[in-house]
Amino acid sequence: MSDTVQTLEGWYALHDFRTINWASWKYVSVEERGKALQELLLFLEQWHVVEINKQGSSAVYSIVGQKADLAFMHLRESLEQLNELETAFNKTTFAQHTIPAYSYVSVVELSNYMTKPGVDPMDDPDIVARLKPTLPKNNHICFYPMNKRRDGADNWYMLSMDERRAMMRSHGMIGRSYAGRVKQIITGSVGLDDWEWGVTLFADDPLTFKKLVYEMRFDRVSAQYGDFGDFYVGNILNLSKLQAMLEV
Amino acid sequence: MSDTVQTLEGWYALHDFRTINWASWKYVSVEERGKALQELLLFLEQWHVVEINKQGSSAVYSIVGQKADLAFMHLRESLEQLNELETAFNKTTFAQHTIPAYSYVSVVELSNYMTKPGVDPMDDPDIVARLKPTLPKNNHICFYPMNKRRDGADNWYMLSMDERRAMMRSHGMIGRSYAGRVKQIITGSVGLDDWEWGVTLFADDPLTFKKLVYEMRFDRVSAQYGDFGDFYVGNILNLSKLQAMLEV
Amino acid sequence: MSDTVQTLEGWYALHDFRTINWASWKYVSVEERGKALQELLLFLEQWHVVEINKQGSSAVYSIVGQKADLAFMHLRESLEQLNELETAFNKTTFAQHTIPAYSYVSVVELSNYMTKPGVDPMDDPDIVARLKPTLPKNNHICFYPMNKRRDGADNWYMLSMDERRAMMRSHGMIGRSYAGRVKQIITGSVGLDDWEWGVTLFADDPLTFKKLVYEMRFDRVSAQYGDFGDFYVGNILNLSKLQAMLEV
Amino acid sequence: MSDTVQTLEGWYALHDFRTINWASWKYVSVEERGKALQELLLFLEQWHVVEINKQGSSAVYSIVGQKADLAFMHLRESLEQLNELETAFNKTTFAQHTIPAYSYVSVVELSNYMTKPGVDPMDDPDIVARLKPTLPKNNHICFYPMNKRRDGADNWYMLSMDERRAMMRSHGMIGRSYAGRVKQIITGSVGLDDWEWGVTLFADDPLTFKKLVYEMRFDRVSAQYGDFGDFYVGNILNLSKLQAMLEV
Amino acid sequence: MSDTVQTLEGWYALHDFRTINWASWKYVSVEERGKALQELLLFLEQWHVVEINKQGSSAVYSIVGQKADLAFMHLRESLEQLNELETAFNKTTFAQHTIPAYSYVSVVELSNYMTKPGVDPMDDPDIVARLKPTLPKNNHICFYPMNKRRDGADNWYMLSMDERRAMMRSHGMIGRSYAGRVKQIITGSVGLDDWEWGVTLFADDPLTFKKLVYEMRFDRVSAQYGDFGDFYVGNILNLSKLQAMLEV
Repeated sequence: MSDTVQTLEGWYALHDFRTINWASWKYVSVEERGKALQELLLFLEQWHVVEINKQGSSAVYSIVGQKADLAFMHLRESLEQLNELETAFNKTTFAQHTIPAYSYVSVVELSNYMTKPGVDPMDDPDIVARLKPTLPKNNHICFYPMNKRRDGADNWYMLSMDERRAMMRSHGMIGRSYAGRVKQIITGSVGLDDWEWGVTLFADDPLTFKKLVYEMRFDRVSAQYGDFGDFYVGNILNLSKLQAMLEV
Repeated sequence: MSDTVQTLEGWYALHDFRTINWASWKYVSVEERGKALQELLLFLEQWHVVEINKQGSSAVYSIVGQKADLAFMHLRESLEQLNELETAFNKTTFAQHTIPAYSYVSVVELSNYMTKPGVDPMDDPDIVARLKPTLPKNNHICFYPMNKRRDGADNWYMLSMDERRAMMRSHGMIGRSYAGRVKQIITGSVGLDDWEWGVTLFADDPLTFKKLVYEMRFDRVSAQYGDFGDFYVGNILNLSKLQAMLEV
Repeated sequence: MSDTVQTLEGWYALHDFRTINWASWKYVSVEERGKALQELLLFLEQWHVVEINKQGSSAVYSIVGQKADLAFMHLRESLEQLNELETAFNKTTFAQHTIPAYSYVSVVELSNYMTKPGVDPMDDPDIVARLKPTLPKNNHICFYPMNKRRDGADNWYMLSMDERRAMMRSHGMIGRSYAGRVKQIITGSVGLDDWEWGVTLFADDPLTFKKLVYEMRFDRVSAQYGDFGDFYVGNILNLSKLQAMLEV
Repeated sequence: MSDTVQTLEGWYALHDFRTINWASWKYVSVEERGKALQELLLFLEQWHVVEINKQGSSAVYSIVGQKADLAFMHLRESLEQLNELETAFNKTTFAQHTIPAYSYVSVVELSNYMTKPGVDPMDDPDIVARLKPTLPKNNHICFYPMNKRRDGADNWYMLSMDERRAMMRSHGMIGRSYAGRVKQIITGSVGLDDWEWGVTLFADDPLTFKKLVYEMRFDRVSAQYGDFGDFYVGNILNLSKLQAMLEV
Repeated sequence: MSDTVQTLEGWYALHDFRTINWASWKYVSVEERGKALQELLLFLEQWHVVEINKQGSSAVYSIVGQKADLAFMHLRESLEQLNELETAFNKTTFAQHTIPAYSYVSVVELSNYMTKPGVDPMDDPDIVARLKPTLPKNNHICFYPMNKRRDGADNWYMLSMDERRAMMRSHGMIGRSYAGRVKQIITGSVGLDDWEWGVTLFADDPLTFKKLVYEMRFDRVSAQYGDFGDFYVGNILNLSKLQAMLEV
């Protein structure tokens, strides 16, 4: 076990991607759409109150392309709270005009690859804040899940702790060179969902996603040991944009 | 054949994951929903009687994320009983408001990698109890199927019995260090379903799933020889929680 | 070509797995269900007559889990007969309450890996009977398709005839040790369907499937050269069980 | 470029596999079915005229198993003509009772692996006829797509022209030994569809498909360098058989 | 980072493939179809104005085979504009008669593998024009996504910049030999969609797609390092062809 990375976990995360059934949304009466929208706005308001109270955080983005129309990202204290939120949303009228597209269950995670032995990372208020973050309100979001590869000679989990730490440090360097341009939330999903990690990036310029991910792909951790799932990219939906999007 | 692991089998298992069709569930009248719920509760009661009578065991959990809404796990004496249970459930009104999401057919299994030669494991009452277990009522469930890898140089089935036994022993050590925090039921599915084993974990703290599975991933059995399917994680549904979930 | 295995072929086989649409089956009137059931029983009767007349054979099983509800396995003299049978069934009222789940097209096959050169295997009445078999009526069925691997160093089709024959002989030994407990029908599907072979096992105790397939997995032919598709396991449906299953 | 195979191309090909929606086909009135059938027969007649005029060729087969019910194979001078044919068919009443199952876009291709340098293959009337063939009317069809493998040491595209030519020659030998029993049309789809080639075989005895494909699998070109997609096998549908098939 | 390729990005791209629901399109009244068509033509006109104003570009093609019926390719200044365009289109009546088939999100990209160090490529007006191109109006389109391989010894991202540059130069040579016959737009999608690049080719003769892609497949960059997704090939739809296509 000495070679296992120790991780710190914070809030649980649910990424919930949905496609709008435009035909049914257009089909119902103006009154029903209006009521559905009011109900949806009430949920957004409740999520906002949770965020204000530092009991969680939620973000709403529109997704570009056919993979989904909407992305909801929720952070909460427990899986129970995420499940209740999800079930309550599923019972809304608006949800009935959406089709589930993809979801991801994970928990905000910090690894201590880069911490010094003998120092308790929970003494670092920055680390505590990063485990229970308020989600950024940047213009753009990018989400993708990933694994560390276990494939013949390219087996991350057969490397020594020292090898892994050295590679992760170099990897972190690249990330740090993007500080100020991109915010990154790593959520761990081993034992919770199909991939090992979810990466959620926030930036005002979506080219930053491309530049960062591409540069990292040449870094050995990604080049030799990274397997990547599907990528979702989107634009922030504030209240007025959401209402404009749903206006038919 | 001397190199084949001898296994002990107990009850057959059916993992039955289902998604609720919220639109149709909301659409029907209060009376029809009420009748459907009564019928469902009657099934739960019958399953409970089976469990009391030590003729099987059943568990009901809600699943987090879009993969499914409900997980039913059933242990019974025979495939016929599981099939009858499944068919009876499919005929209920409630089942018509659900969509099959995933299922898994297997049988509770204990391997004797860790038993001493010459000793009949069936003399051990603990082993007998583990083959026909009453499912735990922990707050959380985690299910995933897995294979032992047969991929080029990483071929579990080409190893000698001694190599496999040594690795499984080390693997078991990790499991034992989680005793008290997690309960594990291994079900074998070679010849019964698409993966070779199903792993069902029960814990009160879902982080235990993450910590256990992640630590094991660095263990050679998993790192070099484990292939894993999809992960399902959920929260226990007692009667009141189930009723609250289905209240619309 | 001298290194190609010579195979003997008998009846063509169609495995036809179907899921029952319980909602529509329950929705129609008692009369319509009754008529649909009569029509279905008539088909079963016709299939039985074919079997009595040694012109083919059919078996009906229920499948455990969500993969399918029903498995029909048909052996006939020609692809035309299988196609006609399939089309006639698709036109029945009952078929409209089912959803196709999976099918497999193949032909009963015996390889002569184990025959002596210079001896015509068609002189062996046992072999002839095995090419045009009456399907067993065992309690349980297990079906899975498989390939011989062609993956880097693990390439079955690059081995010499002698190497392949030696491995198949060892493989056959395991199979023979299960004689009396399991009946096996190998159907070849190279050029007919997506996998190279279909394996259909019949046994009264479904644990036999697990024991046999697991033991064989350690045998080099499977360990190093076998790729396996999905497994379907089921329970026999005689007339009264089928009627009970369809009673709603 | 000197190591690239030069290919000759003829007519464009569309393989169009469709599943019949039997429920809707049975649901409509006898009159509507009759009109739909007349419209379909008119299309068949038009396709026949194109064939008579040597402007293309079409074949209609029924497919065995659940993958599809019908296979239409069309050869035409241009992608525009295939697209028009496809769109016109999609607008028919009959097409609305079918569900698209699979399609393949390619072009009849002859490689000059076996031609002598300095000789223009277009001087060979046999080659010209093979590039714009009238489709055979054999009892059975078999279609599958394939790639040449690019996987580690097994990389067809990294071999020298000489190595490839030698292997293709041996491969062609096997094919030629089946002359008279099977007709083969190779269509190239690099840059047109997901696989690199489509293979369409025609034979009166479907066992020929199995024997030929199985024997070739031991040939090094297939054993080491062939990747194969799904296989579709079917029975010819002349007018009376098609009408009988659609009679409900 | 010195080994990372520097890329230049221009307009964002959305490839939007759709299948027509012919049954519903035929079902609605002539009036509704007429209104839907007018609305669609208005969108085409708006897209044309954007193109005239050099604020973007759009192309409309029909796709051959069942993968899709229509391909819309849009280039715009921002992801927000693409998202608005997509949402506006989804709200049209015509869109409700289509089913999403596939989409791709990327950004026009030029790599500087072939530029000289110390020279700013943005000083080259040709490069600027290629980053914000007006889409060609050729008779045929071909789209496919691709990755550079990271698989054991075949790992593009582990090569030195020099090795990669040399291979890309050779690759570019082939491309240049097709100048005048094919136009190529490379869009990068690292961090934006599931593959790393999208390749869109335009040509008047679709055989050019086949010849070019096939010749490149023997080039080491593709042979050893290229992984390719699905291929979509289509025919240009000018206004009259689009109207003819939608006439029922």
